[in-house]
Order: sequence, then C-alpha cells, then structure tokens
Amino acid sequence: MSQGFLLVISGPSGCGKGTVSKALLERNSDIVFSISATTRKRRVGEEDGINYFFMDEEEFCENVEKNEFLEHAFVHNNYYGTPRDFVLKEIEKGEIVLLEIDVQGAMQVKKNYKNVVFVFLLPPTMAELKDRITKRGTETPEDIQRRFENAFEELNFVGEYDYFVVNDKVENAVLDIENIICAEKLRVKRHSDIKEKIISQGGK
Amino acid sequence: MSQGFLLVISGPSGCGKGTVSKALLERNSDIVFSISATTRKRRVGEEDGINYFFMDEEEFCENVEKNEFLEHAFVHNNYYGTPRDFVLKEIEKGEIVLLEIDVQGAMQVKKNYKNVVFVFLLPPTMAELKDRITKRGTETPEDIQRRFENAFEELNFVGEYDYFVVNDKVENAVLDIENIICAEKLRVKRHSDIKEKIISQGGK
Repeated sequence: MSQGFLLVISGPSGCGKGTVSKALLERNSDIVFSISATTRKRRVGEEDGINYFFMDEEEFCENVEKNEFLEHAFVHNNYYGTPRDFVLKEIEKGEIVLLEIDVQGAMQVKKNYKNVVFVFLLPPTMAELKDRITKRGTETPEDIQRRFENAFEELNFVGEYDYFVVNDKVENAVLDIENIICAEKLRVKRHSDIKEKIISQGGK
Repeated sequence: MSQGFLLVISGPSGCGKGTVSKALLERNSDIVFSISATTRKRRVGEEDGINYFFMDEEEFCENVEKNEFLEHAFVHNNYYGTPRDFVLKEIEKGEIVLLEIDVQGAMQVKKNYKNVVFVFLLPPTMAELKDRITKRGTETPEDIQRRFENAFEELNFVGEYDYFVVNDKVENAVLDIENIICAEKLRVKRHSDIKEKIISQGGK
C-alpha cells in the first residue's frame, strides 16, 4: 500500500503559486486540495468543508492550543489554518494533498510535519516579479515596494525546500511539478511492502 | 551552475537492468555512461577509455589501495571497478552519469560516495524473474536455481535505494527513470546559486 504525501507549493508573492496550483488541480483530478479552516464570515456560495472549514474564534483558538493546525496565520482580522487531521486522513488513504501557501506558512508546516514535498516556485526574473506585483493594481506604490522587498527576502528561504520550479510559463511549471509528483510516487520510503507485492502478484 | 549526479540503476539478476540502461542511453544522449576499469584482455573492436579502462592487475590493485574505485569486484578471474575520478569529473561538469550495477556493487557505491540517486529495478513478478533467468539458457538448472534464490535475497536491499521502478515493459521503466531524472534536476540541493540566477538574469 502506497502512502500519499503533502505537496506544499510556495514562494514569494507574485511568483504565481495560485495560478499554478489551480492549473495543476484542473489537470490532475486525483490531487486533493487542502481545505483551510477560517474565522472569516462565509460568503454567498461558499460551503463549509468545501471552500473552508468555517469556525468562530473560540473554536479556532482551541484548535491552535491543541496543535491541530499544521500552520496558521492572522490575516486581515481573520484567522486561517491548515487542519492537520484532514491532511493526515487523506495521506493515509494514499492521496496527494496540495497546500498552496506563503513562505512563512511553509516554514511552520516544516516544523510540524515531516511527510512533505516542498516546492519553491520562482519568478523567471525579479523584473518579472515586480511587474506581476505592480499589475495587481490594488495597492499603493508603497505597498508594492514593500511587497517586492519582502519577496526579495523570501528568496533566501529557497534552501529550506526540496525542489524549485521556475514559473516562466504556467504550463511549464505545471509539467515540472507533475514530474516531481511522478518521481515522489516512486520513492521506496512511501512503499512499505514492495517485496511482498512482487512476491505475491507483482508490480505496481 | 547545476551539479550533476551519479544515477545507479541496479536490481536482482533478471530484472532487466542492462536492457533498460541501454534503452535509457539511446533516448538520452546527454546521459554519460560510467566506463569501468578492468583487468580482462581487450577484445577486438574494444577501445581503451571508450568500452573500458584497460589495466593490468598491478595497476588495478594500486588503484584499489588508493581508494580510486567507487566499487570493484572480481568476476570470472578478472577485476572490474568504477573509477571515482571519471565519475566525479563528469558530475562536476553538471553531467548525469549512469552506472548499471548489481546490488552488491550498489551497496559499495553507497558507502563510498554520497551524490547518488539509487534506482532499484524490479521484475513485475517472481515468476517473470525466474522465466527471464531461465530463458538465458546458458546455465545449468542448479545455476538457475541459485541465481533465482540470490535474486530473491537481493530484493531485501530495496530499502537501501531511493526509488524503485517496476520493469513490466522496458518503455515504461525508461519513462519512470526519465521522470526521476527530471525531478532530481529540480532539487534545490543541486543548485547553489538559485537566488543569484533569478536576480541576475533569471530562471533556469
């Protein structure tokens, strides 16, 4: 029986991790998206357990104390977290669980869980990164500058990751990540019973 | 600058490592085949430094004492070894060096060198393995039985490897190994200067 793993796709803001993760999920229906818990109000059309696990602050903080999140953060007056229980259940079933997250979150996951494949998504150039951050157009020049400087700092964390993928074109980045997934599925450490399989009826 | 690595393709006799390695090299002209040193007589058409590094026993044993082989063995009254120097020079150039070798040899390499990707090639079933060993037709029933029992024992070493590939069809096994190579090329640890690349002119 093959064990699944947590696939963390991370990188500086503007590297395109959201777009790449979406494209990866569209092409690979067998990848399970990690559903976050949040204290923010449910919006029209959002379903509990589908878009998010919605909970109030009290419940969220209880879960934090019980160490039931692989990572969590406070963003725009709301808490967000990755429920350990959901991820581990899927992985035990042999699933690959995708978690798209910023660098700080990825570093929290690294402290809290070991069966993870960490992919660092890179912009092709810093000029391209600045361009992507600017094009969002939702922020002041100061915000953009700050975000760019943060992104620059976040590049220092690449050494904490297993793989890097340059997001020059989304299709190429997705292909690289699919390649990584195929290889990781062939890792001996994820298969406890290789010899037995071969002896009994053999093979994949 | 990306660092290459040594790709060890190994497995029990009859798993098809020779056929798979040959097919892999035919499809990937950028992979460098590890040339062995040997004390056996040069045959017609064989070239020194192309087919083998030919040397006499004295030179070979000197090299063994100087620890200049990643592994070596005495087979049918001749010595065979993998020259460390050749492998390391190619890897420093960024090349992937393929070494096709039996399980005992792979375990020697593991002791002597760290920058290695170990692939264990498996037969789809033990019945198929016995069939392949038998079909060689060059051996007595006793030889075949002994070889089969050895192969069975060698399966116990799969846990020492990084990846396993089931050789049900050669094409599939080659694709799996190509996948592993692509992923290993994206490993952060093989790239010392990712941030500098992105900052300077960016990307792969």
